[in-house]
Amino acid sequence: MAADARTPMRIVPVIMSGGSGTRLWPLSTDARPKQFHPLGGAATMIQATALRFSPESGLEMGLSFLPPIIICNRAHEALARDHLKAIGVEPLAVVLEPFGRNTAAVAAMAAKLVQELCPGALAVLLPADHVIADERAFRAAVACGVAASTRIVTFGITPTAPETGYGYIQSGAPICEGVFEVVRFAEKPARAIAEAYVAEGGYSWNGGIFLFAPEVMLSELEAHRPDILTAVTVALDAAEREDTTIRLTDATFAAVPSESVDVAVMEPTRLAAVAPCTAGWADIGSWSELWRLGDKDARGNVTPAHSVVLDSDDCMVWADIGVQVGVVGLRDVIVVAAGGAVVVLPKDRAQDVKRVVETLRARKA
Amino acid sequence: MAADARTPMRIVPVIMSGGSGTRLWPLSTDARPKQFHPLGGAATMIQATALRFSPESGLEMGLSFLPPIIICNRAHEALARDHLKAIGVEPLAVVLEPFGRNTAAVAAMAAKLVQELCPGALAVLLPADHVIADERAFRAAVACGVAASTRIVTFGITPTAPETGYGYIQSGAPICEGVFEVVRFAEKPARAIAEAYVAEGGYSWNGGIFLFAPEVMLSELEAHRPDILTAVTVALDAAEREDTTIRLTDATFAAVPSESVDVAVMEPTRLAAVAPCTAGWADIGSWSELWRLGDKDARGNVTPAHSVVLDSDDCMVWADIGVQVGVVGLRDVIVVAAGGAVVVLPKDRAQDVKRVVETLRARKA
Repeated sequence: MAADARTPMRIVPVIMSGGSGTRLWPLSTDARPKQFHPLGGAATMIQATALRFSPESGLEMGLSFLPPIIICNRAHEALARDHLKAIGVEPLAVVLEPFGRNTAAVAAMAAKLVQELCPGALAVLLPADHVIADERAFRAAVACGVAASTRIVTFGITPTAPETGYGYIQSGAPICEGVFEVVRFAEKPARAIAEAYVAEGGYSWNGGIFLFAPEVMLSELEAHRPDILTAVTVALDAAEREDTTIRLTDATFAAVPSESVDVAVMEPTRLAAVAPCTAGWADIGSWSELWRLGDKDARGNVTPAHSVVLDSDDCMVWADIGVQVGVVGLRDVIVVAAGGAVVVLPKDRAQDVKRVVETLRARKA
Repeated sequence: MAADARTPMRIVPVIMSGGSGTRLWPLSTDARPKQFHPLGGAATMIQATALRFSPESGLEMGLSFLPPIIICNRAHEALARDHLKAIGVEPLAVVLEPFGRNTAAVAAMAAKLVQELCPGALAVLLPADHVIADERAFRAAVACGVAASTRIVTFGITPTAPETGYGYIQSGAPICEGVFEVVRFAEKPARAIAEAYVAEGGYSWNGGIFLFAPEVMLSELEAHRPDILTAVTVALDAAEREDTTIRLTDATFAAVPSESVDVAVMEPTRLAAVAPCTAGWADIGSWSELWRLGDKDARGNVTPAHSVVLDSDDCMVWADIGVQVGVVGLRDVIVVAAGGAVVVLPKDRAQDVKRVVETLRARKA
């Protein structure tokens, strides 16, 4: 199953596009979540995720990337297909979820579909809403991971700061070049603990990106969460298929236990491996994260050119084209005007955008 | 010239609608300044100003209010006529300025036009962008002022706080019921001085509302600023007239010196009088002023019902219908979303909205 020089290992990117991204409201909405917006550059995030594994991009690493499988909410089928079509990508399959059932279900579907559609290929499970600045470094880590494909390889991001918003992975003994045993997965830590991890070294952020041979993932699911594997098998068998579309049914998918692949598989398995990389990775989960990543002016503000920001410091301003935004005399404040709505709050309360969305939803209900 | 019980004194309201209200951007714009918005209630401010002097409203005071003369920028003719028509008011005249030339020019035009169109009537000069909560108290002050119509009567508003944003008038000896000599006009004071005025008593805010017989105003202009009177006379003679429209020409109006009626007439004249009143007056010059006047929730926020304001205190939120605004964790901040634009700034920097507008204008130029 390992790659050799003459026959490049085939890899199917499985793009997880199920998130709703309410903490990026009002840009990110139920109708058009964050992965369908250009948050990390000119391309939308789902496009950037697909382009990261274009067929050409793998060749220099001795890898053969196949067209992606997309797993998204059924409400977003047209969006997903349109965004991919715009960059010339025709997916192998588009799996439509009626609702989310977390990442263990997605990993199970990825394993079963890659096995069915591309026997012998590996799967790489990719969230559609991550930014990776150094894509070459990331693909190099994937190439290392391929050499460890009897394992389930998770990609660890070398911390640039003691972030408390990410889980951490502690690396152990080397398995092969660039790949290590996992000593343990650590939950999102308190600040002091995060600082200790960074000072100690040997810890990576858990990026939620996985490389595996379908057989390995399926046997580990069978060993640790056979209920999830069985329910996913039933759901895929019952799904309506038409061309490349796989439409899961409400009843069968509702029966799938909702669990993360970290908890269901990665923590109990003895086959976990970690490939650390320094790839400028970010999970754009909030407006404060977008501020952290953005190009700042001399006073630390991230602002669109068509806004007016005076006497302000370290602010994050986002405005749709055509919306004039004026900000004066603020520090560490987020101001977003998008889709005919506006949100304003301090950067250190960026998570509370969620509460605004929930309040608005409750009013409608 | 004084009113008697049998023949009510005729008074022509002259509504000054020339302001641009840039400090209330983005609600107030060049195309539709603040007086054409409903900032103090259901009626727009220009409508409320006209309704304050409806023919019926004067009768119980022994006054006969005639239809108003409107003085506005030529760009706003249709707006002004439409807003008045909507409340059944047909103006005596609509004077169209090509640009503003301050209030001395307006007072001169008011005197000349009232003399021409309604000989024997008094003029009351009214800014179109003031809120007056107790209109009856205000009209009662006007009725007092009529008895002193050999003077130029300015209406002084009894201070409710040591505001530093208004000029003050010190009252002297009584002239007749409710009307006093003016000891002096005081510029916008520093905080400590404003506090001393309020503590001492005998000071009113200068509301910029004037009652006068045309002959008195004209003779005082002749005495103190004949250049303004001459230039206004030339401009009115050269104006294009059609039905009730009086269109000033660029060249003749540009020749009118730009000065306030306070400086040009009220300060030098010995005929100034002040009628203090407690009428719930406010010059809505800024968003912080709108906050001061607005209905506040338990935490001091003024917010539209369709917004979501969480964990915030003493904020001023304004949003067009249909625009969802979410605010979290802020104190003393103004958030306005109107006309497709947004402004966010601390309440104590409300004046700086002007700088945002100027910056945007400079970019367009």
